[in-house]
Amino acid sequence: MSDIHFNKEKGSQLKLFTPGPVEVPERILQELAKPNDTHRSIPYEEMHEKVVEGLQKLLYTDNDCFIFTSSATGVMEACVRNLVKSDEKALFLSIGAFGDRWYNIGVKNGKNSTKEEVEWGRALKPEFVKEALEKDNYNVVFLQSNETSTGVYNPLEEIVPIIKDSGAVVCVDTTSSIAGVKVEVDKLGIDVCLASVQKCLALPPGLAVASISKKALNKAENVENRGHYFDFVYFNKKNQQNQTPTTPPIPQIRALAAQLDYILNQEGLEERFKRHARLGKRTRIWARDAGLEMFSESGFESNTVSTMKNSLNIDYAKMVSEMLSKGYRIVNGYGDLKNKTFRIGHMGEVSIKELENMLEDLTDVISALRLNKIS
Amino acid sequence: MSDIHFNKEKGSQLKLFTPGPVEVPERILQELAKPNDTHRSIPYEEMHEKVVEGLQKLLYTDNDCFIFTSSATGVMEACVRNLVKSDEKALFLSIGAFGDRWYNIGVKNGKNSTKEEVEWGRALKPEFVKEALEKDNYNVVFLQSNETSTGVYNPLEEIVPIIKDSGAVVCVDTTSSIAGVKVEVDKLGIDVCLASVQKCLALPPGLAVASISKKALNKAENVENRGHYFDFVYFNKKNQQNQTPTTPPIPQIRALAAQLDYILNQEGLEERFKRHARLGKRTRIWARDAGLEMFSESGFESNTVSTMKNSLNIDYAKMVSEMLSKGYRIVNGYGDLKNKTFRIGHMGEVSIKELENMLEDLTDVISALRLNKIS
Repeated sequence: MSDIHFNKEKGSQLKLFTPGPVEVPERILQELAKPNDTHRSIPYEEMHEKVVEGLQKLLYTDNDCFIFTSSATGVMEACVRNLVKSDEKALFLSIGAFGDRWYNIGVKNGKNSTKEEVEWGRALKPEFVKEALEKDNYNVVFLQSNETSTGVYNPLEEIVPIIKDSGAVVCVDTTSSIAGVKVEVDKLGIDVCLASVQKCLALPPGLAVASISKKALNKAENVENRGHYFDFVYFNKKNQQNQTPTTPPIPQIRALAAQLDYILNQEGLEERFKRHARLGKRTRIWARDAGLEMFSESGFESNTVSTMKNSLNIDYAKMVSEMLSKGYRIVNGYGDLKNKTFRIGHMGEVSIKELENMLEDLTDVISALRLNKIS
Repeated sequence: MSDIHFNKEKGSQLKLFTPGPVEVPERILQELAKPNDTHRSIPYEEMHEKVVEGLQKLLYTDNDCFIFTSSATGVMEACVRNLVKSDEKALFLSIGAFGDRWYNIGVKNGKNSTKEEVEWGRALKPEFVKEALEKDNYNVVFLQSNETSTGVYNPLEEIVPIIKDSGAVVCVDTTSSIAGVKVEVDKLGIDVCLASVQKCLALPPGLAVASISKKALNKAENVENRGHYFDFVYFNKKNQQNQTPTTPPIPQIRALAAQLDYILNQEGLEERFKRHARLGKRTRIWARDAGLEMFSESGFESNTVSTMKNSLNIDYAKMVSEMLSKGYRIVNGYGDLKNKTFRIGHMGEVSIKELENMLEDLTDVISALRLNKIS
């Protein structure tokens, strides 16, 4: 299989058009390879402080930002454990696989959890959110900005204020949009904005981050059995000292520091968001021209990952494998959406030109598959 | 401060004699810098399988081994959440700061937790363990192999069988001894043997590993509210597919694969354990000659980290800072032991020659401090 082939060659030149982990630029890979030092040191503390300041700019917030040794899923669980008391109610607004995962995390942690969901491919609308909130008194609400499985972007500007008005604490998982789409945490009033770094930040996986509001921190103090490893109160104490509670993934933090510097001071946040918007638009135009219907609802398509239906009745597993032999990794649909959809990730450092080159090859592969030239 | 100085120089040549994170060899740093790929791929699965096989050899076990995106503390919490039911009792055998931490994790997770402790600097003895077990019916017992704060190594061969005889599930944190001291998991009957990788494995931090017995896995299935992120049952399901439940720190896993290959096929396990034993002995001889009493009980001194008392009444903070200006990082005592003790880590890839060079410089620094030549 092509997949093995690329492994054997080592130092693979695979171009990743995946919805994370994505390709990491060489300048960042070199950050990983710098000599290791301990975290209980002044150089680490200076770096930690710089990273927190950078994250605050990235997320448009004055809230403190924490650094976790975990994937985003760990911080999703952290929100559940730190913010929902045993006599409180949690509402999970799901538009796909990652929304469902968050609800399951609520259930598996023994919290009083309710899921309100829309059909996959659709976004949350203000009316739906209002109605969901009116059904009960929810203390904490959980939702995604961008649903990586369906390629849908929720209208946060319209729905977060509605949730805030209900008095609930709001947690938003921005894993597949952070640094690719503008999310103004303080303007929207997001209490916990969490993400991992291997998507639009174009960093290697192994690290997650979150901004935490004073309201969320105060709430956590009174939540029983919130555990130790993800205890927000303890994180806050250590963060004041520019430290993490336990040994952090120092190479990834050094990489994050360098990438935040690049994004904020070289590419520029607005330019980065514009580039992602162009990548999304270009992919959708290609899909339309190729005769592939978007799986995501019109007007709510993600600018970081595009999910296309199987309008042409193609063997998507074969298509993915053919693209791999051409040096590109794109991915099949997520879970139950396998073969019914496929996905192109266009996030991180990808340029329009690189996207267009890949799409050209993909057009050829699709033509060949339709003409049964590939068996 | 010297600490800042080294940061400013970048690419610091600091020699780390720390009890983790330790110095990472250049060949491993280069593994981190290889191009990133996704984990949902055949190359990743091949690497995952190879790492699990290597861990089994390292730990002398046929048990399955899991890879966690967390520090060791995360897996310590995982053991508590996965293995202690709400109507069961957990016993934490503490000989120092990390034993205390595990007990606190039990408490913070709402488990029925009991701590039995010995004076810091002393090891667990068979008689003490027997008496502790006789006080109640404990379902799960937690202990460290090597206590990083006190530099004490517990006599696992004598005490683990006693715990097994009681019928309890046994969890051992081998963070500061894995790959430095032989721990035969199957022979001793350790149910969960956990560790992070930034100590004797000489890898960058950001990853933890554990071997899990069938007994522990079966027990986990019936433990309520064990959560999702560290759910052993889900880990087991994904591990069968050579996958992790969520996105793993791929650079660190690649580094682990390379280091396991080096340890098992180049240095050799027995040689590595012998080298660590020599490093420990050499440090203790130096301490005796320098007039520094060991903090650790005679006969139970760690071969990976040495903790010395302040027999010479030296300003240890100043000593550590002076050593830093000479290019060496050694560390002050842990927590309450600060200034009362200091520590030398001699683990990972450190050679006897490197240790001796550092100890020579340390002797000079101590002499100067005693003669008040350093202000």
